[in-house]
Amino acid sequence: MPQNNPPLDPIPDDIPLAGLISIIYRMRNIYTDAQEIAPGLTTGQIPFIMQISREPGTTQDDLAAHSIYDKGTVARATRKLEENGLLTRTPDPDNRRKLRLFLTPEGEAVVPWVLAIDREWEDILLSGISEDDRRTLCQILHRMAVRSRDTVRKDGDDGTSGDDRCSHTAPLP
Amino acid sequence: MPQNNPPLDPIPDDIPLAGLISIIYRMRNIYTDAQEIAPGLTTGQIPFIMQISREPGTTQDDLAAHSIYDKGTVARATRKLEENGLLTRTPDPDNRRKLRLFLTPEGEAVVPWVLAIDREWEDILLSGISEDDRRTLCQILHRMAVRSRDTVRKDGDDGTSGDDRCSHTAPLP
Repeated sequence: MPQNNPPLDPIPDDIPLAGLISIIYRMRNIYTDAQEIAPGLTTGQIPFIMQISREPGTTQDDLAAHSIYDKGTVARATRKLEENGLLTRTPDPDNRRKLRLFLTPEGEAVVPWVLAIDREWEDILLSGISEDDRRTLCQILHRMAVRSRDTVRKDGDDGTSGDDRCSHTAPLP
Repeated sequence: MPQNNPPLDPIPDDIPLAGLISIIYRMRNIYTDAQEIAPGLTTGQIPFIMQISREPGTTQDDLAAHSIYDKGTVARATRKLEENGLLTRTPDPDNRRKLRLFLTPEGEAVVPWVLAIDREWEDILLSGISEDDRRTLCQILHRMAVRSRDTVRKDGDDGTSGDDRCSHTAPLP
């Protein structure tokens, strides 16, 4: 983060949504990296940790397919996470070319910490925004996430399946 | 992009907003990279092109400060953009250590193309969403972008200044 803080130019009126998303994404990464959750862990690796926590024993290939990462990126990230003691990569007994991923206790400890930081970050960004507007925001972003993944995959899903599945629309603490 | 498309796991119900933002951001980058806008141009360099287009002659340092990038990242990106013929880096006559950035005609040609891709992307992602909900989305995302930048800079701005400055809430074509 910069050491001195001259006034910032305003964020332009006509910036496309993609530009706003990009700013929020990058600022959240800077914010999260600064928390130093675990030695060597970068914010870019967090989605892998969270997905393995949801699906222990998932394979590297499934992890890449789920989040539309290329296999090389996933292989590098999981090797790094293994070196840093946050997960293990265990060959599948039935097919030793498949690596199954499990979090170590140190990796498991990352999960609630990330969730707490995400809650804190949402609390800062959404403070003063009504519950109705939060619900609208969450529903639209969920739909946009589904559609954007489907668009990149071009599998023809219309992306509306997730519209009513938001569970975090209650006011933040 | 993957060659074969097995069914995707749904995006979880309880994914934090930061997770949704991260998915949308990454998918947009994959989508935009696939358009091959200009030789050697990566989606990560686009914010620099757009900011120089808004402020021709901006310095590398101002560009870094505006978007909270570290100076090394900006120096590498602008050097790459210069090598690819999209901008020039001209020493300021009054202070030759300052590099002033100007788009070349090839760089200028990138701007409308990016705006068209962003419009197309918004059109896909927001299709079927009411004008009211788009306006709400845009206002909240603008506020979140301002607040997130201010939070990372910790300069005490309450982040509400941008709330009424959305200009792209009309239905997309």
